[in-house]
Amino acid sequence: VRGLMMDTPLLITSIMRHCEQLHGDREIVSVTADNPRHRYNYATAFRRSRQLANALRRLGVNPSERLGTLAWSDYRHFEVYYAVACYGAVCHTINPRLFEAQLEYIINHAQDRYIFADPDYLPLLEKLAPRLPLLRGTILLTTRENMPRSELPNLLCYEDLLSRESPDFEWPMLEENTASSLCYTSGTTGAPKGVLYSHRSNVLHTLTVGTADVLGLRNIDTVMPIVPMFHANAWGVPYSAAMVGAKLVLPGGKLGDAATLADLIETESVNVSFGVPTVWGTLLQYLHRSNRRLTKLRRVFVGGSACSWALMQQLQQRHGVYTHHAWGMTEMSPIGTSNSVTPVRASLSTAEQDAEQLSQGRAVFGVEMKIVDERDQSQPWDGIATGLLKVRGPFVCGSYFNTERSDAHDLAGWFSTGDLAAISPNGHLRIADRVKDVIKSGGEWISSIDLENAAMAFPGVAEAAVIAMAHPKWQERPLLVVVPQAGQTIDTKALLALIGSKVAKWWVPDDVQLVTDLPHTASGKLDKQGLRQRFADYHWPQKSSP
Amino acid sequence: VRGLMMDTPLLITSIMRHCEQLHGDREIVSVTADNPRHRYNYATAFRRSRQLANALRRLGVNPSERLGTLAWSDYRHFEVYYAVACYGAVCHTINPRLFEAQLEYIINHAQDRYIFADPDYLPLLEKLAPRLPLLRGTILLTTRENMPRSELPNLLCYEDLLSRESPDFEWPMLEENTASSLCYTSGTTGAPKGVLYSHRSNVLHTLTVGTADVLGLRNIDTVMPIVPMFHANAWGVPYSAAMVGAKLVLPGGKLGDAATLADLIETESVNVSFGVPTVWGTLLQYLHRSNRRLTKLRRVFVGGSACSWALMQQLQQRHGVYTHHAWGMTEMSPIGTSNSVTPVRASLSTAEQDAEQLSQGRAVFGVEMKIVDERDQSQPWDGIATGLLKVRGPFVCGSYFNTERSDAHDLAGWFSTGDLAAISPNGHLRIADRVKDVIKSGGEWISSIDLENAAMAFPGVAEAAVIAMAHPKWQERPLLVVVPQAGQTIDTKALLALIGSKVAKWWVPDDVQLVTDLPHTASGKLDKQGLRQRFADYHWPQKSSP
Repeated sequence: VRGLMMDTPLLITSIMRHCEQLHGDREIVSVTADNPRHRYNYATAFRRSRQLANALRRLGVNPSERLGTLAWSDYRHFEVYYAVACYGAVCHTINPRLFEAQLEYIINHAQDRYIFADPDYLPLLEKLAPRLPLLRGTILLTTRENMPRSELPNLLCYEDLLSRESPDFEWPMLEENTASSLCYTSGTTGAPKGVLYSHRSNVLHTLTVGTADVLGLRNIDTVMPIVPMFHANAWGVPYSAAMVGAKLVLPGGKLGDAATLADLIETESVNVSFGVPTVWGTLLQYLHRSNRRLTKLRRVFVGGSACSWALMQQLQQRHGVYTHHAWGMTEMSPIGTSNSVTPVRASLSTAEQDAEQLSQGRAVFGVEMKIVDERDQSQPWDGIATGLLKVRGPFVCGSYFNTERSDAHDLAGWFSTGDLAAISPNGHLRIADRVKDVIKSGGEWISSIDLENAAMAFPGVAEAAVIAMAHPKWQERPLLVVVPQAGQTIDTKALLALIGSKVAKWWVPDDVQLVTDLPHTASGKLDKQGLRQRFADYHWPQKSSP
Repeated sequence: VRGLMMDTPLLITSIMRHCEQLHGDREIVSVTADNPRHRYNYATAFRRSRQLANALRRLGVNPSERLGTLAWSDYRHFEVYYAVACYGAVCHTINPRLFEAQLEYIINHAQDRYIFADPDYLPLLEKLAPRLPLLRGTILLTTRENMPRSELPNLLCYEDLLSRESPDFEWPMLEENTASSLCYTSGTTGAPKGVLYSHRSNVLHTLTVGTADVLGLRNIDTVMPIVPMFHANAWGVPYSAAMVGAKLVLPGGKLGDAATLADLIETESVNVSFGVPTVWGTLLQYLHRSNRRLTKLRRVFVGGSACSWALMQQLQQRHGVYTHHAWGMTEMSPIGTSNSVTPVRASLSTAEQDAEQLSQGRAVFGVEMKIVDERDQSQPWDGIATGLLKVRGPFVCGSYFNTERSDAHDLAGWFSTGDLAAISPNGHLRIADRVKDVIKSGGEWISSIDLENAAMAFPGVAEAAVIAMAHPKWQERPLLVVVPQAGQTIDTKALLALIGSKVAKWWVPDDVQLVTDLPHTASGKLDKQGLRQRFADYHWPQKSSP
C-alpha cells in the first residue's frame, strides 16, 4: 500500500522559491572581471534568472539541451546555475583549465548548444570554435560596454540579453529525475567522463549536507566557497547557502589571490569557508608573511585532497579556525563524509582526539560505504584493515553520460571511488591513498598521503608530494618532492628523520628532491601524474635503502 | 533527459542502517512500566527490531498490513516503529486517551491485525475486543514474568516473542512511496481521519528538520521528546535522533510528572527537548515550588499550541533555556515551521526581537505556504493581513486513508490547515487562531490565542483559555477562563486591565471565570470544544461591554 502524502517532486526550483520567499534580502557578494565587489541579493538574482529563462526561450533552447559555462565563481554564474536547471535544460560547468583537446572533447561530447563564458575565455573559444560544430552561440558574461571585439560567430552579450526580457517566467513543473547539471571528471586516464546530476540528487544532497553535523549552514552565516563553481558544483554551496539564506561570497577568479581572499573574509565577515588544502596553505603563508590575522572566520571545510595536521593546527592556533576535514568526489555531488565533533572525543587522549579530527569524518546520510579487498570481499571496520572504498546512494553517480558501462560501477550497484581507505569501528574514514598513487613496496602498501602529511609538519616546507618510483629490488619505493617556503632552506636529513619518527621505518622515502613548484590539476589538487612525468628520467641515488 | 545518479529509494531502513553503522553505541534511555530507567544502545534496539521482524513473519503478517500500538514513549515502542515500517507493514500509532467509541472506530477503520500494547491498556483492550472483528491478536509490551492474567484471546508476550527469534533479518528493498505509518487526527468534528505516511515522506521530513536552522540535532546532543510517540511520530524525534545518533531519552508515561522529567533532564544531561506549552508550564511550576533549576537543558521546541511570551521568558531567565517556537500538524509529519535566530534580529528593537521570537517561525524547506481570504485569494505577506493558512509539499498529507476526498484538500493540491495566520515579509508565521476558535465579534475577528497569551503574563495565572460565547448584540464575545496557580488568588479586574494594555480595547474579554482545571486533548492541547460544553449554560453578567 502506498502512503498518501503529496506527490511533490524534489526540484532545484523549490530551493529557489524557498530562498526567494524567506531570504530574498540576503546578500550575494561577488568578484567579477568588471567589478571587484559586486553586491545584490537573492531576490535580484532569481529575478534575473527568470529574465535569463525568457532569453533561453527566445533563443530556442529546448528542455534537456546542454548549455555550457566557462566561468569563475560569481553572481552571473549563480544565475545561470538556477535558470538553466529550472528551465529544464542542463547546466554543464566546464573546467577552463583543461587542455584544449579535452575542452573540445567535452563540449562536443556534451553537445553543448550555447556556452556562457567569462570575457577572459573569449580567445580560447575563438580558437576552439571551428572544432565545435554543434555550438550555436556564445554568451559573454559581461555588459555591452565591456564587450570585446571578436570575429566569433553568434557572440551574444549576457546583460544585453537579460535587459530585453521580462522578470516574469513560470518555471515548469519538472519530473524530479530530470537532469539538472553536468560535470566532467578530469580523469588522468582515459577520456573525461560526465556526471549527470538530477534535480532530485541535488536537492537530496543539499538537504543532507544541510544537517547540523555535516555543513550545518545557517541563515546567520556568511559563507565563501573558495572552490570554483565549475568544480563539482562548488561543493554544492550555491544550493546549500540559498536553501538556508546564508550570505554568499563568491571570489571570482581570485581563488589563488591570498590578499583578496583575506580581505573578503575580513570585510564581508565570512565565518564559514570551503577549499582544498593548497588554498589554505597559500593563504596561511600570505597571512604569516604579512603578519595578518583572520578575525571573522570560525570554521573551514577542507577536502579535495588530504588535509595535513600541520595545516589544521596553524588554522586553529593562529587564527582560531576549526577545520572540518571532508571527503567527496564529483561523482558524489560531491560530499561523501564530513568530520564533526563526536560525543566521545572529549574523553579521548589528545593524540586520539587529533587522529579523530584528522580523519575524513563519517559518511553523510545517504552515502553507504564499504571497503573491499582485491576479491571484492568486505573488510572489517576496525580502523586498520585497508581496502578499496565503494559507495552508493541517491546522490552518487549511477553511470556516466553517454558512456558504456564503466569499470567503476559494479553489478551490485556500488561505485568504486579509486581510493584506498580504512574505517574505524564508529565509521571514521581514513583515506590511505588513491589506488593509483599508493606505493607498492615489496608486496606491501605505503601511503603517499601519510608521508606527505608527515613532511608538511617540518618547518619551512610549503608543499610536499610523494610518488612511487620504480625500484630494482622493491618494485617501487617512495620519492619525496618538496617545495620550500620562500627564503627557507630544508635540511633533508632532518626532514627524513622527522618522517621516520612518525611512520614505519621502511616507509621513509629513499630520496628527497627540492623543487620550486609542483604541478596541480584544474581543481587545485596535486597532479601526481604530471609529477611522475617530470621525474620520468629520475634515478635513485646509490645505496638506496631499506 | 533523466539524470544518471543512482536510483536509491528513500527508506526508513536507511536511517536505521546509517545509525547502526555510525552511532550504534549511542544510548536510548527509557522509562517503562517495568523499569524506571532502562538503558541500552541503538545497536541493541535495531538488533531487537530484526528479531521482531522475524516474529512478524512467523505470525504471518503480510507487507502493507496495519499493526497498531497503544503505548507510551519507550524503547519497545521505538523498536516497533522501525521493525514494522521496515518490514513493509504499517505502524499505526493509536492515541490511548481517545474515547472507547473512537478507538473502536479507528482500529476497525485501519483494519489493524495486531496491536502492541502497554500492560496498562490490557483492561481497555479486553473491553474493546468483542468489537474488533479483524484483530488477530495482542502483543503485550512486557516480559513473561510481568504478564498479567487475562482472558483476552491470542494474547502474546513481546519479550517472549523476541527471545525465540534470530537477530538476522534481511530488510526488504521497498519502493520509497510504500506506506510506513498511520496516525489518526483526533478531529473534534466528524470521524477521525488517518494520515498515512510513506518511507519517502518520513525520510524527507527527517532530513529537512535535521538542517541546522530547524531542529538541527547533532550527534553530541541528548534529546528528550516530551511528546507521546502516538502523537504525530513524537514530532519525528525517533527518526531525527537516530539519523544523527543523538542520545535519546524517552519518558514513558511520565509526560505529566514534572519531578521525573526534571530528574531525567538533570541526570541524563538532556540538552534539547520538545513539548507542548502545558508540559513546560507544569514543569516550571514544579521547579518554582521545589526551588530547583535546570542546569543541562539549553534549547526547547514548543509547539502543538501557541507558546506564551511569559513561558519563554521564564525558561530563559530562570533556567537559561532558549525557546524555539514551532508549528505543525499530524498532516505535516508534523513540523511546518520553526523559529531560529535571523541575521537581522540583533539589529531590531527589544520589542521587535521579542515579537520575532514569539512568532511560530518560518516554513521549513519542503513546506510551501499561502494565506487566503474567504474567496481563496492569496493575501499579502505583510505581517498584518490574516487568512486561512494553506500548505503543500512532499511530507504534507495528500488525502486521508480510506476516505472520500476531504474538504481540507483543494483541487490545486493545497491542504487547508484550519488555522488563521499572518505572515511577515520575511516569512515569519503568526498563527492568529484556529478558524473554529476565533471569536467573531461585530463582523471582526478576535484572536483567542492573543488574549490567552496576554492573560498568561499576569502573576498567579497557571493556565488561561478564551472561548467565544454567543452574544445578543455582537454575535460572539470572548470569555476568559483562568486556572490560578496553587494557593494564588486572581484579581480579575487587574487581570483584564493588563490585557487591555496589550490588545485593542474591544478585544478585552467580557468576563473572567476562575476554575481549578481545564480540559485537554490526548496530546495535551487545550480542548476548547470540551470547555465550550462545560460553559454551555453560561450567561453573561449584566451590562456586558463593549
